[in-house]
Amino acid sequence: MAESKAAPQGKSVTSKVAAILDAFSAETPRLSLQALTERAGLPQSTTYRLASELVEWGGLEHGPGGYQIGLRLWEIGELARRGEQLRDLALPFMQDLYDATKENIHLAVLDGHEALYIERITGRRAARVVTRRGGRLPLHATGVGKALLAYAPPELVAEVLSKNLKRYTAHTVIAPAQLRRKLTEVRRTGLAFALEEMSLGTVSVAAPIFSAPETTVAALAVVVRSSRKDIQRLAPAVRATANSLSRILREQGFEPLSQVPERPRSRVASSHSMAV
Amino acid sequence: MAESKAAPQGKSVTSKVAAILDAFSAETPRLSLQALTERAGLPQSTTYRLASELVEWGGLEHGPGGYQIGLRLWEIGELARRGEQLRDLALPFMQDLYDATKENIHLAVLDGHEALYIERITGRRAARVVTRRGGRLPLHATGVGKALLAYAPPELVAEVLSKNLKRYTAHTVIAPAQLRRKLTEVRRTGLAFALEEMSLGTVSVAAPIFSAPETTVAALAVVVRSSRKDIQRLAPAVRATANSLSRILREQGFEPLSQVPERPRSRVASSHSMAV
Repeated sequence: MAESKAAPQGKSVTSKVAAILDAFSAETPRLSLQALTERAGLPQSTTYRLASELVEWGGLEHGPGGYQIGLRLWEIGELARRGEQLRDLALPFMQDLYDATKENIHLAVLDGHEALYIERITGRRAARVVTRRGGRLPLHATGVGKALLAYAPPELVAEVLSKNLKRYTAHTVIAPAQLRRKLTEVRRTGLAFALEEMSLGTVSVAAPIFSAPETTVAALAVVVRSSRKDIQRLAPAVRATANSLSRILREQGFEPLSQVPERPRSRVASSHSMAV
Repeated sequence: MAESKAAPQGKSVTSKVAAILDAFSAETPRLSLQALTERAGLPQSTTYRLASELVEWGGLEHGPGGYQIGLRLWEIGELARRGEQLRDLALPFMQDLYDATKENIHLAVLDGHEALYIERITGRRAARVVTRRGGRLPLHATGVGKALLAYAPPELVAEVLSKNLKRYTAHTVIAPAQLRRKLTEVRRTGLAFALEEMSLGTVSVAAPIFSAPETTVAALAVVVRSSRKDIQRLAPAVRATANSLSRILREQGFEPLSQVPERPRSRVASSHSMAV
């Protein structure tokens, strides 16, 4: 799903380590040496050596089912600041919304051309949904995605709409003009809906989270069964929670990192870059 | 805090990449190039080159405050299976317990000589606590830690008790004989308490989670303000939830991975190990 995964090019060992880690996905969380080799696009001897070193460190674990991402890497990943501060500020509000609705609560950020889910709350009686922490879903077919897209830079919107958008269900809106009207509607109402557009049987009511006027840093959603008759009644709760969280972010001076990490200046690069 | 962090030895680039990632901690989530260089114990040129490659991949991000762990690494870390399956099975039960108590709910596993917190639920009205996802706390001073230690292999218990245990508050029990009596009590009652032993003002009521008789895979706790007068009343709720979760783990055939990842056999290693 992550189209940003580049094949290992260049010769740097870091990129080979990255290729090995990138080989794992939600669909393929465990890989045999052969599968890992194929997905990483490296010689088997290289894959084996690097994977063994990663196992030694704890970044990978190796068991009967093959290799899998290790707990040490999870632990380090939890230190990612973009996400962490937002999550910490958002969780109590998400919990309040869960208390009021007993439904799935999702928090997502824009990452590339996708919605990256950074937190969720799920009750035992809530609708079964496809989302998981760290999961990605398309912008055009989800409530959080539309809420994020509605306030995204025009170039990004144009890029997303120019692609061949996938129709997940008969309800998925993929026509660019129709989607643009939906985004205008989101900006007018402060709410984004996805009515069985990602999967049949579930609907999403979402709202953007602002760290400053017109600056969306995330989107919040309640996802419920489509059989629920009072979906419109959820809208004020979602909007109120999004407003509260936006206010807290502004009060706390939350500063979103730019989507694209700043690249080191080439001047510094040339003076410091040396072989290991 | 994690004493397992080994200094970069050997010459493998993987271990250098690991040293760079290991330099980050909850206390130092952002590092300047110089700080990163010092903590990683590598030449600055090497640190700079590897960090730049990691930024390019998304494993690190670089902004005004220096380097930090990137969202891509968080995303990959979320794939760690040990933790993920347990978390997915545990979360609805943790949510039920939160609904019933409105207090902090923690889930921790044994990792090395520490309790590693893999999930938590926090409400807006719950007591402020030091725990975070991916955080580590000592076994002897926490409720989950004692619950885990009570069922740990005798050698591990001996190792932990033989160390100079830190006294976090005047209430922290550090005398080995006294701690052993506490662990016996945990095994007798199925409950572990930490009464202001980690920090003043908060108490923890914990219970072990079993995937099979005598096989503890995690511990669950409610952490509340010590001013709460009815702490004993929380005990049945914690134990009932731990029992339900243990039953589900057994029904689902949950198989904990061994603590120590299986090392590849040296026979294979020697035949495949080649320079990249």
